Amino acid sequence: MKEIIAIIRMNMINKTKEALLSKGICSLHCLKVMGRGKKRIDLSFIGDEADIENINYGKIEGEIIENYRLLPKRMITIIVNDEDKDKVVQTIIDTNITGNPGDGKIFVRDISDVIKVRTGERDEAAL
Amino acid sequence: MKEIIAIIRMNMINKTKEALLSKGICSLHCLKVMGRGKKRIDLSFIGDEADIENINYGKIEGEIIENYRLLPKRMITIIVNDEDKDKVVQTIIDTNITGNPGDGKIFVRDISDVIKVRTGERDEAAL
Amino acid sequence: MKEIIAIIRMNMINKTKEALLSKGICSLHCLKVMGRGKKRIDLSFIGDEADIENINYGKIEGEIIENYRLLPKRMITIIVNDEDKDKVVQTIIDTNITGNPGDGKIFVRDISDVIKVRTGERDEAAL
Repeated sequence: MKEIIAIIRMNMINKTKEALLSKGICSLHCLKVMGRGKKRIDLSFIGDEADIENINYGKIEGEIIENYRLLPKRMITIIVNDEDKDKVVQTIIDTNITGNPGDGKIFVRDISDVIKVRTGERDEAAL
Repeated sequence: MKEIIAIIRMNMINKTKEALLSKGICSLHCLKVMGRGKKRIDLSFIGDEADIENINYGKIEGEIIENYRLLPKRMITIIVNDEDKDKVVQTIIDTNITGNPGDGKIFVRDISDVIKVRTGERDEAAL
Repeated sequence: MKEIIAIIRMNMINKTKEALLSKGICSLHCLKVMGRGKKRIDLSFIGDEADIENINYGKIEGEIIENYRLLPKRMITIIVNDEDKDKVVQTIIDTNITGNPGDGKIFVRDISDVIKVRTGERDEAAL
């Protein structure tokens, strides 16, 4: 089984949830994180993420990087069978792509066991 | 080493922490997430999770699913030796089972390294 | 690829971010967790983590452990190539070591895929 973690824009969570649901994926959990990628943040791209939490400015070799900030993002986690992995990844890409920096990233990890507390079911039955 | 992640009801965190402690497991971290499983949420089961954050309603093929909601849950993470895995999983099940939907799920992942910052100890010594 | 997760003191996040940036690592995400390790918490060490959230007291065999508390911590996550793993781990240790309990822990997991949403780039190109 695979764990798919996507870090996406705050305002894309509902659209992403609906897109996954339309593909039959409804089991998920999500939370708010602060994050950034490799690019300098061009503030003109930020738009409705205006509640930037300016945790800190960074420095490389004494030079202040004015846009080295963490932005609020949503992290969404979905556990799926191996064969559903590509479908979920593609759905997340299709839903979240705008072409602007900050569209997000997707990580995939292996999960060795899944157990449903109520029934004790394991693995595929527990998804 | 294994990382055991349990997503449980908000009001079960203290009971779970105590049950783990009684088995000698005291090292853990936890946070609040929003999540849901496969089942429609029957609101009559919710009880003291009444602070539902209704992030969104979902749709499948144009039909509105009124109970497609994310509920606040606690996610608890415990890193253990391989031999302690079953004990921890069973303790979480025994503590959290009520028989109603929403009892939660447990995921197990492999962890390749653990390092304690203060001492530089690794793996079992760092747990 | 590796996912490096460090659970560190709340007030060390900016210093850690800067230290990573000075090593060329700027892509990361972080969040607040509640956690504890194996040691009883000596409150005299806590200092500016004074906003202890006393979620609960624990018990071992009927004896109340007064300092079994979860403390607010920052969890920082960095995804890197295998060859950058040791550099990142050492940077986090060097930045966060004070010699007092509570300096934190570092976990390393394998990541099987990384995808950048905007470009569809994968793995090293997506970091």
